[in-house]
Amino acid sequence: MTIDRITIVGTGLIGASAGLALRAAGFPGEIVGWDRHPAQTQIALERSAIDVAAVDPLNAAVRSDLILLSGPVFAIQDWMERLAPLLQPHQLVTDVGSVKVAIAERAQPLFGGPGQAGFLPGHPMAGKEVSGAAHADAKLFEHAVWLFTEFAPHPLAAGWRAWVERFGCRTMDIQAARHDEICAWVSHLPQFLSTALSAMLEDRFGDAPDLRAIGGRALREMTRLGASPYSMWRDVAHSNEAEIADALLSLEQRLAYVRENLKTPELREEFERANRFRAAPAVNP
Amino acid sequence: MTIDRITIVGTGLIGASAGLALRAAGFPGEIVGWDRHPAQTQIALERSAIDVAAVDPLNAAVRSDLILLSGPVFAIQDWMERLAPLLQPHQLVTDVGSVKVAIAERAQPLFGGPGQAGFLPGHPMAGKEVSGAAHADAKLFEHAVWLFTEFAPHPLAAGWRAWVERFGCRTMDIQAARHDEICAWVSHLPQFLSTALSAMLEDRFGDAPDLRAIGGRALREMTRLGASPYSMWRDVAHSNEAEIADALLSLEQRLAYVRENLKTPELREEFERANRFRAAPAVNP
Repeated sequence: MTIDRITIVGTGLIGASAGLALRAAGFPGEIVGWDRHPAQTQIALERSAIDVAAVDPLNAAVRSDLILLSGPVFAIQDWMERLAPLLQPHQLVTDVGSVKVAIAERAQPLFGGPGQAGFLPGHPMAGKEVSGAAHADAKLFEHAVWLFTEFAPHPLAAGWRAWVERFGCRTMDIQAARHDEICAWVSHLPQFLSTALSAMLEDRFGDAPDLRAIGGRALREMTRLGASPYSMWRDVAHSNEAEIADALLSLEQRLAYVRENLKTPELREEFERANRFRAAPAVNP
Repeated sequence: MTIDRITIVGTGLIGASAGLALRAAGFPGEIVGWDRHPAQTQIALERSAIDVAAVDPLNAAVRSDLILLSGPVFAIQDWMERLAPLLQPHQLVTDVGSVKVAIAERAQPLFGGPGQAGFLPGHPMAGKEVSGAAHADAKLFEHAVWLFTEFAPHPLAAGWRAWVERFGCRTMDIQAARHDEICAWVSHLPQFLSTALSAMLEDRFGDAPDLRAIGGRALREMTRLGASPYSMWRDVAHSNEAEIADALLSLEQRLAYVRENLKTPELREEFERANRFRAAPAVNP
């Protein structure tokens, strides 16, 4: 069984990048796209991230082998609910949601059972602080890891994973709970930290020209994700709250420890621990 | 009066980069260098960041028009003490220290008075998370801001500022206290934050391969400065402690606020404030 026709529901940054990556990797079939913002669908079409703009995404999905759900977690869950009753067992739904326990729980009664379509929970560890099809990039996933969590096997799953690998991704299987734990620390914490830091600087310094002039690479890197839209992160905050709160609290305590030890020998040990973290070989360079 | 002979005391990353930048900008005079680690002096010499390796830095300094002090803040202060009694009023000492109130206070009785050499407190807002002459780069200062704080005028100060501008820097004058305040937030806070975050991840995850594999650009950016050496930052922590502690405490409180509002509408406002900070035009793009 091969994937000949794909519908991308949500042709924003990630969805449109997937379309461009499919084309760059030589996908020979048809890519239909839809976004709740018609302008995003239009941009994706103009950039050839999709071949056809769907008028009715449900109708397009019904006639596709694979449906890629791209967008905020709650939007993905909504589409899972709407699509499940319309699809057939030979069809596969996959997603790119940033949280996986909540997605898997929602999928459980809807997909993978007798008479139901398949589901493959996925999450590419790639993104930008800007959103929208205009920023889509065929190389967005190059050298990134595309994570998959466990679900009922489906004949098309291997085909989609093969396309993802042709995007230049390394695929990796991980438990949904471990996914949400790790992502809380390496992805969600950096986002909420960058938002908090940027908001704090906005309150304290506003647009003071000397702050802007003096801040260099460190400031730019630390606040880059401050540009990220609330619309994407609200759902992550809701659906992975316990893990994110744990990571934030740990960082608060760690900053207090550093603050209390600015003049003690403990600061040296803290730098040495940090040096060790950075010196360890990265699996994904 | 022109600068014909320069001695660089401390030919590590910044000192050797200044030597390379001087050469790239066409400095026609002699550059003498010295580092307390002879290997660093040797690398700077091999890379042509300096023309001559000084055996005795005091002797070299006495025969120079300008002496550039590069290294940790306390090392700069030590050299100020050692050099001041040996130098003449026609000579100018300048530094690249990360903190300026402590440097200016130390300079006050030593330089700029009758019979004393001149002093020009400086601070290029450029650097890397790695140290040493091997990482020196003639373009390290390109597009950066080189800050200067007030001190007694000296005939060679304009000449040194002109060379700095030929490095591709924008020069900017700032009060020493404002310098230390702004740098606490845009430079020192990012450093101690990155150290704390890296050390925390080291304690919690060690070298867990899934964490390394999954972490993407956000993790790399946020922990990049975790590689910075304690030897450079100990002096900053000591000599700007009050401002850094203020910034750290503010960030702790801000993170707690975000943590307590992961599921409330206040999170939207926090994202909007952060978006505003990032949307403001950067003076130094």
